[in-house]
Amino acid sequence: MSLDPTKEFYREVLDNGYVKMLDVMGDDSSPDTDARISTGAAARSEDQRTTLIRFLLRHKHTTPFEGSVMKFEVRAPIMVIREWFRHRTFSYNEESGRYKQLDPLYYTPEKSRVSYQAKSNHQGSGELHPEAASFVVQWAEEQREFEESYNTLIQEHNVARELARLNMPVSHYSTFVVTGNLLNWFRFLQLRMEETAQYEIRVYATAIFDLARQYFPRSFEAFEDYWLEAVSLSRREVELLANMISQPITVECFAGAVPAPSPQFTKRESEEFRRKLLRMGLLKEA
Amino acid sequence: MSLDPTKEFYREVLDNGYVKMLDVMGDDSSPDTDARISTGAAARSEDQRTTLIRFLLRHKHTTPFEGSVMKFEVRAPIMVIREWFRHRTFSYNEESGRYKQLDPLYYTPEKSRVSYQAKSNHQGSGELHPEAASFVVQWAEEQREFEESYNTLIQEHNVARELARLNMPVSHYSTFVVTGNLLNWFRFLQLRMEETAQYEIRVYATAIFDLARQYFPRSFEAFEDYWLEAVSLSRREVELLANMISQPITVECFAGAVPAPSPQFTKRESEEFRRKLLRMGLLKEA
Amino acid sequence: MSLDPTKEFYREVLDNGYVKMLDVMGDDSSPDTDARISTGAAARSEDQRTTLIRFLLRHKHTTPFEGSVMKFEVRAPIMVIREWFRHRTFSYNEESGRYKQLDPLYYTPEKSRVSYQAKSNHQGSGELHPEAASFVVQWAEEQREFEESYNTLIQEHNVARELARLNMPVSHYSTFVVTGNLLNWFRFLQLRMEETAQYEIRVYATAIFDLARQYFPRSFEAFEDYWLEAVSLSRREVELLANMISQPITVECFAGAVPAPSPQFTKRESEEFRRKLLRMGLLKEA
Amino acid sequence: MSLDPTKEFYREVLDNGYVKMLDVMGDDSSPDTDARISTGAAARSEDQRTTLIRFLLRHKHTTPFEGSVMKFEVRAPIMVIREWFRHRTFSYNEESGRYKQLDPLYYTPEKSRVSYQAKSNHQGSGELHPEAASFVVQWAEEQREFEESYNTLIQEHNVARELARLNMPVSHYSTFVVTGNLLNWFRFLQLRMEETAQYEIRVYATAIFDLARQYFPRSFEAFEDYWLEAVSLSRREVELLANMISQPITVECFAGAVPAPSPQFTKRESEEFRRKLLRMGLLKEA
Repeated sequence: MSLDPTKEFYREVLDNGYVKMLDVMGDDSSPDTDARISTGAAARSEDQRTTLIRFLLRHKHTTPFEGSVMKFEVRAPIMVIREWFRHRTFSYNEESGRYKQLDPLYYTPEKSRVSYQAKSNHQGSGELHPEAASFVVQWAEEQREFEESYNTLIQEHNVARELARLNMPVSHYSTFVVTGNLLNWFRFLQLRMEETAQYEIRVYATAIFDLARQYFPRSFEAFEDYWLEAVSLSRREVELLANMISQPITVECFAGAVPAPSPQFTKRESEEFRRKLLRMGLLKEA
Repeated sequence: MSLDPTKEFYREVLDNGYVKMLDVMGDDSSPDTDARISTGAAARSEDQRTTLIRFLLRHKHTTPFEGSVMKFEVRAPIMVIREWFRHRTFSYNEESGRYKQLDPLYYTPEKSRVSYQAKSNHQGSGELHPEAASFVVQWAEEQREFEESYNTLIQEHNVARELARLNMPVSHYSTFVVTGNLLNWFRFLQLRMEETAQYEIRVYATAIFDLARQYFPRSFEAFEDYWLEAVSLSRREVELLANMISQPITVECFAGAVPAPSPQFTKRESEEFRRKLLRMGLLKEA
Repeated sequence: MSLDPTKEFYREVLDNGYVKMLDVMGDDSSPDTDARISTGAAARSEDQRTTLIRFLLRHKHTTPFEGSVMKFEVRAPIMVIREWFRHRTFSYNEESGRYKQLDPLYYTPEKSRVSYQAKSNHQGSGELHPEAASFVVQWAEEQREFEESYNTLIQEHNVARELARLNMPVSHYSTFVVTGNLLNWFRFLQLRMEETAQYEIRVYATAIFDLARQYFPRSFEAFEDYWLEAVSLSRREVELLANMISQPITVECFAGAVPAPSPQFTKRESEEFRRKLLRMGLLKEA
Repeated sequence: MSLDPTKEFYREVLDNGYVKMLDVMGDDSSPDTDARISTGAAARSEDQRTTLIRFLLRHKHTTPFEGSVMKFEVRAPIMVIREWFRHRTFSYNEESGRYKQLDPLYYTPEKSRVSYQAKSNHQGSGELHPEAASFVVQWAEEQREFEESYNTLIQEHNVARELARLNMPVSHYSTFVVTGNLLNWFRFLQLRMEETAQYEIRVYATAIFDLARQYFPRSFEAFEDYWLEAVSLSRREVELLANMISQPITVECFAGAVPAPSPQFTKRESEEFRRKLLRMGLLKEA
């Protein structure tokens, strides 16, 4: 167990769920060390490490992030687990309804979560449903009814557990252990912290993000800057944008705007940015 | 679409499910062709192909089975899908309860399936439960109640589909497309055709097996002989067995028992068997 | 074998290499069909298919591209194979120097390829080396010497092939079969068609791209527009760009510049673009 | 860094290679803990843990071994690396001949390693070649020549490194970092410790095995008993064996031979063995 007792390792999520960090291998120096095997470069200062981590994530050189690993225990509704387990590079062990009677824990959303179907996309509209309160009551009631039926089948009738769970609702909580390397986690977070992800998995992703970044603060900062908060423009959008900008950026303006070199924005990055703007037709060549 | 119209491509499974072959890439000659890239050997007769396929599977040389692919559409209860999707080397696309109101299809087991919990393992005992009929009625009733509630929330109240499904039972059917190479399918079938696999996924595995083997008859025969029906003895079991056998096999007995060489049991295999028995201490050396 | 005889299936690459398409499963309708399993939507017109394919790739909904497969035979220098095989989601079978004496084929670069080491990065500088011609002669001579030594060890001395290859240069050609789904191929091409990829693998990637796009023209066009030719701006670059643009785009200018809706640039995409520009601070809100 | 300073972490391999353990996550209690998430069973005694680990590996329940991770640094000849990297579930970072001039290290086999080609298989025959000594001298000379040429191209002519390595022999050493979970390592060792694996990778596998088992002694013991040293009999071999055994084992003989229950051979395992022998037709039913 390599957890740091001074760091937070547990978060409650939803009404009965949680994420709990179990173990970690590596720290922010690991991607740097693993990447330097390629070049044989000598060990680095903190700033040089930051620079390298940021360079690697900026250019999607992802293998050096595969040598660091985090392991969590998670309790989540089956509906969330169904989405989570689509991430096939993680390793999982989950509680089994064949092997045990599952604990009587269900997810009942808060009233404020209950909205109309959105018209423009496949999600909730965000607009509170006026009958939200009654739906929540109804759902909780359905869950109680299932629980009673499930418990009776197992405890009184000794029906095989693998069948007694037949009508278990996907709001039922289950528990699993999940292990993945830093790249696996980045890919998961990239998809599940997006605003189009369903609320119920988004809160888990955010909890993971908060706990994980304590152990790899520079890697996660770079992940935010270059992946999570990046904006990608298609070939056509680049052309359109160039047409919409009436006054291209001058060389002087560019030089005046880019910050002084630092590990957060190196000279090399500044040069990459310049070439990107040129390619996009936004910068007037000298 | 490379399906052969003279072959069966569809099987009903359980009360409302099915597997349907959508596409296939390769045939029984593909593992042979792909394996021969290693050795540069010239094209083969049918018998030589059979021999090579059997050699490859016997020795777990699995990469030549990764160059042939089968794609199926499957409708199965969520409880089965939850087990299926633990196989992470397949590619999946599944119906989404966020994106559409799912069809009103539920799995209700046959009475004969409803048994007591086994004492010795985690499965059903196989012994019919005297109240089976009433449980089945009760389950169907619970499903009807959920369906009514689900349909009302969506159709009458326009509640976001992603929430309306909150209490959807894992007996609800969903549909998915699954693509995998021959090795992926062998691994899946090896696990899910086993008698310890839950009945509900076993019937799907068997249906896949029956449809798939039509396209790769020799590969699947070898799979059965060397994987599915093989017996593995541990180090300790080998020792114990040698002690239990009072009279080791004589060379003459061995020679008299092994069949004449054929693609189903080659001379090479006979020699491998001889060495295996020697190593196990069951054969008396000449 | 599902290849279309009217399409090109073979390309020579470098001096002695090639890529040869062996098989394909699926076509441009497959990602659409696989994606519609999620929504249950009915079959589509060509234009609607194009729209969906482009939407999927734009939003990195990649699973519908995993249900289509392409298989190639490739002959390439070992140095290229070493880079290629780092792509771990492909299935491979390769010629084996343990199993056969490899054919006497070596990669000798063209004179024009021989340049100085670049100062600013890890690549060739692109500046022709004045002694290029003599280096090429020397390399070819070294290859002849190895070939003679290798051939003698095997043919005259019957040395085990697995050792006779001890000093085989990485310029030696080897042959392999590679199978992957459309997503695997996109990821490979994204990395290996980049200008920072080594020239020798880039020409293979380009050949694959040219052959493959014949079978999935709309998917590959979308891949180019949204992946290959996209520009990604980091959080910081977005901020800097907003500061450099003296005159934000007006609503009128935007409306005048975006093209009329078409499958190549739908109304939805136009709206996504508008929100992107707002978020980037480049568009003045009405 | 979670290494135990009292344990060996480094092994020299071949003439210039090594394996060096860099990090580990988990210990022998981890597979037990991860497996118990399925059943919710309480924590265990040492013996119960051993029993569970052995049960899991015996029945190929492999997911609980995916939650423990080991990371190594390895220096090996390119010919070995080419075989190693076919294991696609590991994460790798390797020294790059594009990014640096590689160190002048080559693998020259010991004289005793140089044998004739075997007739019956693709390997060395094991019979020492009478001219072995002169071959070794010749190989070392070829390596010196390449080194001189390589060094001159880079140091004197400043040729791009990515080309200067063109004729680098596969006997050249390179260095890499490899991370994998316990299951990945078991699969690698199963294949590469086999006697048919090429000697040069077998010695690396053995070194990994020796270092790794210190950290997971019970898991590796079970791996040896149930995987490495197991004997698998095909359907046909089982039939043949039954025919060759003139006197089936009696119930009394079986009862007398199986050892008293222990974590190394539990009552359950004894029962599994009994049923296996019945199925194989070797045991006479009472």
